[in-house]
Amino acid sequence: MCISCDHTIHRHQFNYGWSRDFAPELVAKSGQTILFQCLDSSGGLVAEDSTVETITTFDFGKINPLTGPVYVEGAQPGDALSITFLKYHPSGKGWSANIPGFGLLADQFKDPALYFWNYDAARMVPCAYGPGGKVPLKAFAGTVGVAPAEVGIHSVVPPRHVGGNIDIRDLTAGATLYLPVEVEGALLSIGDTHAAQGDGEVAGSAIETQMDVEIRIDIIKDAKLKSPWCRTPGPVTRHLDGDGYEITTGIGSDLMVGAREAVMRMVDLLSARHGLSPIDAYMLCSVCGDLRVSAVVNRPNWVVSFYFPRIVFR
Amino acid sequence: MCISCDHTIHRHQFNYGWSRDFAPELVAKSGQTILFQCLDSSGGLVAEDSTVETITTFDFGKINPLTGPVYVEGAQPGDALSITFLKYHPSGKGWSANIPGFGLLADQFKDPALYFWNYDAARMVPCAYGPGGKVPLKAFAGTVGVAPAEVGIHSVVPPRHVGGNIDIRDLTAGATLYLPVEVEGALLSIGDTHAAQGDGEVAGSAIETQMDVEIRIDIIKDAKLKSPWCRTPGPVTRHLDGDGYEITTGIGSDLMVGAREAVMRMVDLLSARHGLSPIDAYMLCSVCGDLRVSAVVNRPNWVVSFYFPRIVFR
Repeated sequence: MCISCDHTIHRHQFNYGWSRDFAPELVAKSGQTILFQCLDSSGGLVAEDSTVETITTFDFGKINPLTGPVYVEGAQPGDALSITFLKYHPSGKGWSANIPGFGLLADQFKDPALYFWNYDAARMVPCAYGPGGKVPLKAFAGTVGVAPAEVGIHSVVPPRHVGGNIDIRDLTAGATLYLPVEVEGALLSIGDTHAAQGDGEVAGSAIETQMDVEIRIDIIKDAKLKSPWCRTPGPVTRHLDGDGYEITTGIGSDLMVGAREAVMRMVDLLSARHGLSPIDAYMLCSVCGDLRVSAVVNRPNWVVSFYFPRIVFR
Repeated sequence: MCISCDHTIHRHQFNYGWSRDFAPELVAKSGQTILFQCLDSSGGLVAEDSTVETITTFDFGKINPLTGPVYVEGAQPGDALSITFLKYHPSGKGWSANIPGFGLLADQFKDPALYFWNYDAARMVPCAYGPGGKVPLKAFAGTVGVAPAEVGIHSVVPPRHVGGNIDIRDLTAGATLYLPVEVEGALLSIGDTHAAQGDGEVAGSAIETQMDVEIRIDIIKDAKLKSPWCRTPGPVTRHLDGDGYEITTGIGSDLMVGAREAVMRMVDLLSARHGLSPIDAYMLCSVCGDLRVSAVVNRPNWVVSFYFPRIVFR
């Protein structure tokens, strides 16, 4: 509950995908605050009595329901919509999965897997991962976007220049996201809330969890943004970096191949050192390991690195 | 000078490129410490009286001279060589450049540019950048590698699975790098020392600077590494992250295109906000901004992000 918010948009007020033709669920003004009650990315389909059957039968047309849209008065194409994340209200229950066909190493991890998290929503202390380790938490919304100008209903899965499923894990409380407005009223929606995710979300899921999100919206006239831009008010990794990192690498002439190799090598390392099964290590990488580009100019080979925070196995 | 090192390998003991046939300049044992006196990546060619002429006439066959090689007794193909960086002795003078034809946005920045840094080598406090901002410093070696098994002389430019020009900017004092050994004695060389660099080294140069490097070497028998692996003993970005980040994005179906867009948007942002010329902003991005992969599974679009530390313009 948000006592001081100007508006609340409720959990049942959602759509699948993006469209300029979705009717606004709320009309708000620049400068106002809104509480978004978000569903998790399964729309509540994954519950603690779920089995891997649930995730193998996902209808990708009905995943990631987005709370909204909010029509922002005065927002015009060419403006930017600024969204400041004020506070997250996590639920305490979450899940991670390997969904067949989805994820950076989908060709190697073909079997479904599902793991449930019970985390301390009030204190957000590191949460034990059954197979091994403790994952530091930080809540954020994985999907934040406005409607594209193009008519039709657009899949929720791919991120776009108007935002959407961008999964930028540093959109935590205090951060601001700027999105290019393409339709009158912007039509802002939010969903896909996460309790933790590494850069890349390599196995395709984070700690997926229902959450409420307090935001403030502002219009920046005539900003002419070309792609999303964010600002964080302070450090982003101090909950993770205390003990340093293990860093594996993928070196070669293609960034995607390098990214895959760097993650494979980290799965090898975590399996060998901590006795995790490869699939458990892969899912752990997705919730707390970071994909970075160390070197991208030394033609013809680039270095992609995967940073795993050692604090997880302190 | 290193009082306690077992060996010193001097600045004039260098080679261009990599070869299993280069004669060892030093023979050392597992567990020993070595002081490497490294040249800067221009081999001392760029000096304070240099003009952009110097960098437009670079012979890429004679850049990045590497101090070494060191033959490590007992190192065999299949082993890993562990290199622990104990201490860096920076020189206090450095340079950054835009070298025509080199760098992530070489097609857009065709004119040469050269900037000289004078930094406090003893205190390594943030160093003023003439066009604007102050860059936090942290010394590391950009090129660390062992000889590839393949015969011949191999260019120093591309990094390889045996290391080389990997430019992993977190190989600072305290970090350990593990490299797969492919030839007897490993044949370790080090060079390309940097006083600061962002992940990606997007404009193609860091703060290029002559430096001495103290390391310890250890052999890990039969490690069967497939690519370089590193470990940092603690946080890697706390000198940079105090005021948070500006984050620009490139969203699309190709990671390289996304990387380029994310950097272009940051050049736009720094130019508009701080009055830097685009080329000055681009060179600044290379020494302190970080290329990360935020989302790599939401087919068909990925999100590449460029993180610029706000502390630079505090």
